[in-house]
Amino acid sequence: MQPGTFEVLVLGSNGALPAYERFPSSQLLHVNERLYLIDCGEGTQFQLRKYGVRISRIRQIFITHLHGDHVYGLPGLITTFQLMRRSEKLEIFGPPGIQSFCEQVLGWTTSQLQFELRCHELRELNGVQFFDDEAVRVSALPLEHKVPCVGYLFREKKERRKLDAVRLRAEGIPEICWRSLERGEDVQLPDGRRLAHAEYTISPPPGRSFAYCADTIYTRALLPYLHKVDLLYHETTFLHELEATAKEYGHSTTVQAAELAREADVRALLTGHYSARYEDPETLAMECRSVFAPVITGKEGLKIIVPWPREAGAPYATV
Amino acid sequence: MQPGTFEVLVLGSNGALPAYERFPSSQLLHVNERLYLIDCGEGTQFQLRKYGVRISRIRQIFITHLHGDHVYGLPGLITTFQLMRRSEKLEIFGPPGIQSFCEQVLGWTTSQLQFELRCHELRELNGVQFFDDEAVRVSALPLEHKVPCVGYLFREKKERRKLDAVRLRAEGIPEICWRSLERGEDVQLPDGRRLAHAEYTISPPPGRSFAYCADTIYTRALLPYLHKVDLLYHETTFLHELEATAKEYGHSTTVQAAELAREADVRALLTGHYSARYEDPETLAMECRSVFAPVITGKEGLKIIVPWPREAGAPYATV
Repeated sequence: MQPGTFEVLVLGSNGALPAYERFPSSQLLHVNERLYLIDCGEGTQFQLRKYGVRISRIRQIFITHLHGDHVYGLPGLITTFQLMRRSEKLEIFGPPGIQSFCEQVLGWTTSQLQFELRCHELRELNGVQFFDDEAVRVSALPLEHKVPCVGYLFREKKERRKLDAVRLRAEGIPEICWRSLERGEDVQLPDGRRLAHAEYTISPPPGRSFAYCADTIYTRALLPYLHKVDLLYHETTFLHELEATAKEYGHSTTVQAAELAREADVRALLTGHYSARYEDPETLAMECRSVFAPVITGKEGLKIIVPWPREAGAPYATV
Repeated sequence: MQPGTFEVLVLGSNGALPAYERFPSSQLLHVNERLYLIDCGEGTQFQLRKYGVRISRIRQIFITHLHGDHVYGLPGLITTFQLMRRSEKLEIFGPPGIQSFCEQVLGWTTSQLQFELRCHELRELNGVQFFDDEAVRVSALPLEHKVPCVGYLFREKKERRKLDAVRLRAEGIPEICWRSLERGEDVQLPDGRRLAHAEYTISPPPGRSFAYCADTIYTRALLPYLHKVDLLYHETTFLHELEATAKEYGHSTTVQAAELAREADVRALLTGHYSARYEDPETLAMECRSVFAPVITGKEGLKIIVPWPREAGAPYATV
């Protein structure tokens, strides 16, 4: 089977205060045929359109917290779904308060919503899985910010176990049984032998993973969840000289994000949520690279393609 | 005295559904040292920043109606004012409902607002003046849309009457009396003559004017208020072939806007609020010009300089 798509598109890389024509926080994860929107700062719908995303295909939106630069694009996006006569259900996940936020926004729309909008407030942030579909499993991570804040870990779903054709042939198992084994069933042969599904199938390699960690101070509580993820987005709001400021405002520095990435042994770190004081994101990314090499500088429109199969040390393609 | 600035900056020219990297409705009126924001669609704060507007100088915001493409930029702009530690009062004018909208938005901010935010709900839309300051008088106009909708007419304040120096000199009035006359006082001369302020001063020509009419169907109820205004912004959502669609959705066509401009004998018509089906605004502006010549095609970043003194037939400078 061909590996599917696993890509992250950066829609907004800026912190709270507008600067340098950057947009506030939003990213789109594309796994196989599924699109997942993560955070939705003001203008996200314009960015989605600019980069050619078919927004009707977004079925889930994951909100980290209720600060404006992560959520003020929701009212416009919901209105646009309504104007486009969306009919598919839309699910929004977020911290406590997201339900009330959406209810107020719906109170502003002048017509009855034509699609189902379901909000889910997440309270368990200890890595427990709260969502899955054909493509991914998603779990919630404990971030530490000025307000309740949820990180997200997306894991590509493993394909179902594949037949161990070599063994099946070697043992002369008739092909008529193969399909049942592949489906997950155990099989009883006419000669009395019992074939266990688990023994005649092979575990596929683990799926790719993406963790989204913003906004947050540097916290080692994240480490257990981030071990060896393929792509870690961790905010890099400030250069490390502003470590005290970062902590005061509930943010992280470049060096802190890079240290976490190194400790968690992730394959690549994506930067973002830049303070308005920095014109060039490369300044921040370069400081990360003094600690941890595989750093991708987040910028509006950047698409990061997480490859399959993994190749040790190979940089990810970006578009 | 030098004539002051009277400029309109287009921040967003698009209708409700995002298209072609246009932004939703917003314009900035700049009269002398004062800045007035009219409508505040999503992303307005990014546009203000892009075009170098010092947003702390905005003291009044005029909202036409509570559809998202005219108002969803307010939450972000208010949050940014807060992050910038604004201290000056901010006034927001709009239709009934604007107060509740702002209260909900303020409920989302995590900190106590450090500046006074005052909402004014406008119910009298018959051209009555509801606001004035040193630079302008503003009155509310009756628009007809799917929801309550307010148009705005800005009139530059007349300067105070100027001395009629020719007459003063011809009659040999001593210059020591001039200042009192200019201040608005009557003057008693040593020879017993009484000089009336009104007789020895000249009325200044009327100040420049700008009318903002969106969203609305074509309505002749606007005519009395628009007579000879210097610049009329009237929505041109559709080409005239979609006249029925325009009416159904509470909008106007190019030809309708141009006919109103011609009937009101305005000096120039500014187009905008383009439907997402049109890529090039010039298509719409050209259809307006088949009815009425002085049409300015509204586009993001366009600045229209309304000249002083008026010159018959001269086109306005745009930047």
